[in-house]
Amino acid sequence: MSSDSSQYDSLCAKSREISLLGNTAGVLGWDQETYMPKNGVAYRAKQLSWLSGKIHELGTSDDFREALEGAEQEEGDATQQANVREIRHSYDRSTKLPRELVEKSSEATSLGKAAWAEARQKSDFSLFAPHLSTLLDIARQKAELWGYEEEPYDALLEGFERGAKTSQVAAIFDAVDDELAATAQEACERSLSQPSDILSGHYPIADQQTLNREIAEDVGFDFDGGRIDTTTHPFCTGLGPGDTRLTTRYLEDNFTSSLFGVLHEAGHGLYNQGLPKDQHGLPAGNAVSLGIHESQSRLWENHVGRSRAFWTKWLPRAQEIFPNLAKLDLDTFLTAINRAEKTFIRVEADEATYDLHILLRFGLERKMLNREIEVADVPAAWNESFEKLFAMTPPDDTHGCLQDIHWSMGGLGYFSTYTLGNFNAAQLYHSAMQDQQVASGCEQANYQALLQWMRENIHQQGSVLFPQDLMKAATGEGTNPRFHLDHLKRRFLK
Amino acid sequence: MSSDSSQYDSLCAKSREISLLGNTAGVLGWDQETYMPKNGVAYRAKQLSWLSGKIHELGTSDDFREALEGAEQEEGDATQQANVREIRHSYDRSTKLPRELVEKSSEATSLGKAAWAEARQKSDFSLFAPHLSTLLDIARQKAELWGYEEEPYDALLEGFERGAKTSQVAAIFDAVDDELAATAQEACERSLSQPSDILSGHYPIADQQTLNREIAEDVGFDFDGGRIDTTTHPFCTGLGPGDTRLTTRYLEDNFTSSLFGVLHEAGHGLYNQGLPKDQHGLPAGNAVSLGIHESQSRLWENHVGRSRAFWTKWLPRAQEIFPNLAKLDLDTFLTAINRAEKTFIRVEADEATYDLHILLRFGLERKMLNREIEVADVPAAWNESFEKLFAMTPPDDTHGCLQDIHWSMGGLGYFSTYTLGNFNAAQLYHSAMQDQQVASGCEQANYQALLQWMRENIHQQGSVLFPQDLMKAATGEGTNPRFHLDHLKRRFLK
Repeated sequence: MSSDSSQYDSLCAKSREISLLGNTAGVLGWDQETYMPKNGVAYRAKQLSWLSGKIHELGTSDDFREALEGAEQEEGDATQQANVREIRHSYDRSTKLPRELVEKSSEATSLGKAAWAEARQKSDFSLFAPHLSTLLDIARQKAELWGYEEEPYDALLEGFERGAKTSQVAAIFDAVDDELAATAQEACERSLSQPSDILSGHYPIADQQTLNREIAEDVGFDFDGGRIDTTTHPFCTGLGPGDTRLTTRYLEDNFTSSLFGVLHEAGHGLYNQGLPKDQHGLPAGNAVSLGIHESQSRLWENHVGRSRAFWTKWLPRAQEIFPNLAKLDLDTFLTAINRAEKTFIRVEADEATYDLHILLRFGLERKMLNREIEVADVPAAWNESFEKLFAMTPPDDTHGCLQDIHWSMGGLGYFSTYTLGNFNAAQLYHSAMQDQQVASGCEQANYQALLQWMRENIHQQGSVLFPQDLMKAATGEGTNPRFHLDHLKRRFLK
Repeated sequence: MSSDSSQYDSLCAKSREISLLGNTAGVLGWDQETYMPKNGVAYRAKQLSWLSGKIHELGTSDDFREALEGAEQEEGDATQQANVREIRHSYDRSTKLPRELVEKSSEATSLGKAAWAEARQKSDFSLFAPHLSTLLDIARQKAELWGYEEEPYDALLEGFERGAKTSQVAAIFDAVDDELAATAQEACERSLSQPSDILSGHYPIADQQTLNREIAEDVGFDFDGGRIDTTTHPFCTGLGPGDTRLTTRYLEDNFTSSLFGVLHEAGHGLYNQGLPKDQHGLPAGNAVSLGIHESQSRLWENHVGRSRAFWTKWLPRAQEIFPNLAKLDLDTFLTAINRAEKTFIRVEADEATYDLHILLRFGLERKMLNREIEVADVPAAWNESFEKLFAMTPPDDTHGCLQDIHWSMGGLGYFSTYTLGNFNAAQLYHSAMQDQQVASGCEQANYQALLQWMRENIHQQGSVLFPQDLMKAATGEGTNPRFHLDHLKRRFLK
């Protein structure tokens, strides 16, 4: 080993140490959401604060900078170059923000969340408005410090979707917004003639857990390196190279809620479990972006989990476990799980209408950030957009611009990745299905070849390529919404 | 605040930081025992190793030593003095061991555990003997470095039972060993005429959990600041001032195993929950010793949990939950849960015979450490002692000197605290019962006053006093085995 290459090794060791502390915070966070007794919360906050302080200290230290600068002078393969490039990116983002701004941001978020919760509960936007102004100011300041080429939104988006430009995302969305709205509209009209309560019944939670686990295992989720627990807000978290945890929530009158939740989170989990273990703790061992992560969850939830082949295999098993399903035929069941109906609330939206919620948010937050709209005018702008997309008007701001927690947490630039994820999912599924083995496997609800395709084309790639380059390498082109629209039409309008 | 007193404050802040990291390792350890998927083990070991390295670094740093030395020059109340005294004690024990010995010890323990597991499985002491020799050598070296007045065992015992002398413990044990053996013998003879399977039946785990939780709550365990989970080896761990976790294991054919397990661990848990929260992370906020901790678990498990008053209240509820108990009368039930029978295995022993197992181990490990016995002769010496105490001979070393994991982990000087705990439990219970409110509460199976007495006399005291001084303050004298013997005779021979 030359003295040169030891700088890269030293940088990797430091990065892995920081990652180890992040994963320690991950365990503490998982425990807090799942099992921690409620009186543990104050001390847990101190523990998490110690860890984030230490992570910041290590990641911005002179030692770290020197190892990074040294590594940047070294040659290396594509993986090494990507690791150095991404560590530099994170280092710059951490160190460009002065301490006062970080503290101001942290305070604004905590006040913002509290104000948002109250505003949402009272449906009174004026309670949240001054906080939103502050949060937007801080976001703009961060954007200036981080730098951007075209508009401040770029600098925020970069934190979730490396290499993406706001204008590119907007172009993708603008190209299909009318067609998405028309498709959703028609899907909803067709569903009107179908009863909405075909599946209602009593589904004991323990039985739901049995079915969910069998299905998660069958699609390839490894329970020797993972588990499923129960939380109010479902999530997936990677706590180490052999430890990926999903959560879901249960409705006793509808087993599909937890089941599709598990398939969604298992999609994230399969991605985590497929990342290159020898690169764990380094960018090349990390998921590349939210838009790619969401492609994996949506692929297993929607393209696999709501398909005819899948339920040809699984409906009989579900009927064994839930006797009240015994009389349902496959077509009726598929109709029931693929029903489209407009909702005011994004998290209740189905596959046909979901993206409209995202388009609205993306357009609005971009305008807010570019000062093309005043904070006070957000509710009216929200409702105007909503009417345009859904042809209905939210009854109040709780069902409108106050429904999501994201902005109150400073999560600006994040929403677009949900729809990018949907577009990527359809495109990746389409490409994978060009492989004969994948296609014939999926026809028999055997997903080994599909998973293997994702392992090779997405999971094993870590963050070596930028998301759009990864899409090109995997499918021949960057994100193209065509596949998603074709999929929606096949599913809802055929 | 004077500049003087800030040295103590600084020392406290550093101690609390170390404690916070210890509690973080605690969460990771709890998770490993309860929910972590098996492939998480290698990475978890790295996380725990990072934390223990950081704890060692902080606790032996120049900064820490300077704050400690500064604080030792300051005046302060009893709590402050105790904190400084105990931090000095821990600091000296940490810093007196050279790094090589710590590493040698860590290696010897990991090799020792593996060799012990194989030796135990094959019942072949010779596989473990060389490891035991090494572990004893290391223990003797530590004892020399730590220092002692009378014999090396003192220095080890000091790590579990501050201020205790081996000769004092031996004197307490020697005074009652014959009487304990005779009592156990007679208890076992009396139990011979009673069937051993009165309680066998089918007890669904979920129903056991219902009863266990009701009972734990009823004796005062606070579920807002705690929980119960399932593990192979039951334990209680404090993870923060509002977070105390118990575990138990279930036998489907005997509900009393998990129930008394929960009462035992809840006894530890009540102690944790009663420690002074404002001193959390400092010695005055910590439990004082193993011998006092075990007094609390044994008190709730045996003095409360196996009493007539307790089951006068709880048997009807148990009968509601477990229909197969319906025909049992209280006397038969009490006979069943207070049966005495000799066993070769300590962890299967009942209240009447348990201490004999401890007396044997204490005597033997003291001789081993003082080189009064060769390692090769341990099996013969074990069996000889066992015959003397139990009038029966272990069929092999798996049922003899190879049964416990403790020595293989370097846990020398630890066993005596189990019996000190039993003696302390009886003595504390006796003293508490002198209080009219406690006595009349216990008669009605209402344990609020008993818990309050323990809160005031034990829990709230933290580690301000040494264990024997705490016993004197609470009961008027140091550990006196008389109360335990009287209790056993009342329970088993009346």
